[in-house]
Amino acid sequence: MATPVNPPRGMRDFLPADKARRERALGVIRSVYRAHGFDEIETPVVEDWSRLHAGLGGDNEKLSFSILKRGITPDALADAAARGDAEALADLGLRFDLTVPLARFYASHRAELPPVFRAMQIAPVWRAERPQKGRYRQFVQSDIDIIGEASLLAELELITATSAALAALGLKDCVIRVNDRRVLIGLLEHCGFAAEAFDRALITIDKLDKIGASGVVDELRVLDAAAAARLGEVLAAVEPELERGIALDAVSIARVLPGVSGDTAAAGTASLAELGAALTGALPAGVTVRFDPTLVRGMGYYTGTIFEIAHPGSGSSVAGGGRYDGMIGRFLGQQVPAVGFSLGFERIVELLDLDEAAGPDAVVLVWDAEVPRVELLALQRELIARGHRVRLEQRPKNMKALLDRVQREGFTSFAQVRPGLAGADALELRALS
Amino acid sequence: MATPVNPPRGMRDFLPADKARRERALGVIRSVYRAHGFDEIETPVVEDWSRLHAGLGGDNEKLSFSILKRGITPDALADAAARGDAEALADLGLRFDLTVPLARFYASHRAELPPVFRAMQIAPVWRAERPQKGRYRQFVQSDIDIIGEASLLAELELITATSAALAALGLKDCVIRVNDRRVLIGLLEHCGFAAEAFDRALITIDKLDKIGASGVVDELRVLDAAAAARLGEVLAAVEPELERGIALDAVSIARVLPGVSGDTAAAGTASLAELGAALTGALPAGVTVRFDPTLVRGMGYYTGTIFEIAHPGSGSSVAGGGRYDGMIGRFLGQQVPAVGFSLGFERIVELLDLDEAAGPDAVVLVWDAEVPRVELLALQRELIARGHRVRLEQRPKNMKALLDRVQREGFTSFAQVRPGLAGADALELRALS
Repeated sequence: MATPVNPPRGMRDFLPADKARRERALGVIRSVYRAHGFDEIETPVVEDWSRLHAGLGGDNEKLSFSILKRGITPDALADAAARGDAEALADLGLRFDLTVPLARFYASHRAELPPVFRAMQIAPVWRAERPQKGRYRQFVQSDIDIIGEASLLAELELITATSAALAALGLKDCVIRVNDRRVLIGLLEHCGFAAEAFDRALITIDKLDKIGASGVVDELRVLDAAAAARLGEVLAAVEPELERGIALDAVSIARVLPGVSGDTAAAGTASLAELGAALTGALPAGVTVRFDPTLVRGMGYYTGTIFEIAHPGSGSSVAGGGRYDGMIGRFLGQQVPAVGFSLGFERIVELLDLDEAAGPDAVVLVWDAEVPRVELLALQRELIARGHRVRLEQRPKNMKALLDRVQREGFTSFAQVRPGLAGADALELRALS
Repeated sequence: MATPVNPPRGMRDFLPADKARRERALGVIRSVYRAHGFDEIETPVVEDWSRLHAGLGGDNEKLSFSILKRGITPDALADAAARGDAEALADLGLRFDLTVPLARFYASHRAELPPVFRAMQIAPVWRAERPQKGRYRQFVQSDIDIIGEASLLAELELITATSAALAALGLKDCVIRVNDRRVLIGLLEHCGFAAEAFDRALITIDKLDKIGASGVVDELRVLDAAAAARLGEVLAAVEPELERGIALDAVSIARVLPGVSGDTAAAGTASLAELGAALTGALPAGVTVRFDPTLVRGMGYYTGTIFEIAHPGSGSSVAGGGRYDGMIGRFLGQQVPAVGFSLGFERIVELLDLDEAAGPDAVVLVWDAEVPRVELLALQRELIARGHRVRLEQRPKNMKALLDRVQREGFTSFAQVRPGLAGADALELRALS
């Protein structure tokens, strides 16, 4: 059992050093996205219960926290509870992603937004997952989405902005893996799967890195043994190519997926080749773009390009997204083109090596009881006006322990304050080190 | 009924201009508090249900949103609901303030924090209030608290930091009203109220600005008619003094509260006089400090100094706080001195006149379909590297409508992009105006 003063299960407190680190990272991300023309918006952390359970959230819907109705009688509650009627018990829920709220926001405010809307959302979401290392019940998502742009320019802007944000955070040597849902569909058709089997087959291929090609074949054999075997052959041929890295161009795609044809696949291939050509030279130094025909991305709502960014420091991807033309318009009752890219903020912040002492000198003023408060505050005011961060600390018996502690807390110099000092210029500032 | 795409009742979406305005204000507040030595922390938005209903939140406890238990059987739910047992239905709740979470955080992490801990928390809270103008069910609180400092230095630091934050936001001519709970207790003793009547009497005096002195007397007559009448006399004498403004010094306090004596009142008076003296010259130009013997502040947990800041642009206060030595230690089982000051962020952000176009030039690149994407992205990259914010917009039929719109959206210049431009220097940037 948790002790009574811990935060709720699976959630975290952030102490000053952690919080400062997170805010620095968020500041970098915000300013890069803003420079790339994205506009930050915010929605309430709760949405109507029925909207969170409208089928757009996949498995995440089951993980959502529900908020008990207020002002409902115990009898009505008991009645709803006995029927197992969640919607009669709860009218609101905590959002499990930022995409469902974005679709609701867009439907509500479309008339006030530009025709091509570049949205930035950096905010917490909640999922009642079984707590485990690196997985939390409250965590920050950092999403950019372009709504209303049907052309590849949307993908290009998202990929360049996200790559620039990662570079600004100091994450080098990123690899962008790209695929297209239409190429995947073409591959499944080529193998002989029936259209009804596509969803199931994609879910299985998504597990390739965990269960391997033979695991995929085993799992899909019950659907269609012949198609599963053919898929196994393709995957076996692709695996060594993936190891070496497949360029994002028409020739390479045709080479690793021979015989995959048909209109759907051709549209996907052409789009990928155009994307690859346009990205040439458009990315920060060290960033590589690769075609990955086995990339699926979990959510069912993707319709075209899909992408993930891997970083050598992290076992899993640090960013992911894709085109999902069907979804944003759901609450609007019409089709609206949309592409999104989400940073794995919690993973990224673990990888960062941000300079603690960034910013102006942080000074500790050590005061004795005899120093008049008026003088102490005047010194603090004077140093703040010069751009310093200033903390007041009463002189303890053990001065060394104090200096060690404030240095750990990020302060860089200190001065002792005695009564009657003639202003901050009379302070003897000494470096902490 | 709300239309289906609105945010939940009493909550708000923030469109780009509103969100940018809020973030700019939060950035100013954060940086001023940080310069004054405060450390930002963060806790989860939810806390254990029992902690939110431990009696520290006053009336706000009744307004809290409760989160339905997960993985509980319908039968168990029905049983709990029939008994009206909220704690068996809900194990978590959304926080209604930042003070209860701070007390929990401090109890959990005390060993990792400095002996005098200056906490900054800027975060949303939730209250299921009846929605009305200017009152929301999700709103941001911006609190600073000093924990572990028993002396007036804590009050001084909070008041100077908060005044500096308001000045940095451009709110001039603020008036800081100060009182001490001990002076209020002394006043009630002087009038002859019994100790059991103090809480009730304070709640009534807190309504003075709404019901007037005669309303206060009427309401308190049932408790003790003679004491209520004496209080009425004091209030009648104080009211014209309040109009003129009462200086925060020993002479002025004695003048407006003649005969109020006893150890408790004397301790409060001496503390107020010391505070007034130390604040002399310590505040931004235009800020006035006043003694207000009728200031109560709603929460029951205050034990000493209490203060509010009024601004001529707002009918109600823009900041408030005080000393609450009993509360932070509650989850720790021991007394810990603490003082807090909270900015009324939602009120403040309405008063601000922040410059929309702060920051570097924001440029719109208007492109034709013939411009290769590679060239367009290269131009964007080049301008971003020079410090610009850059948005891409496809050339529409009605160019004037586009330029009007992007100007409203905060962009300051634009350029038309044609194929084959030799870099950003070849762009003809034109001001939007």
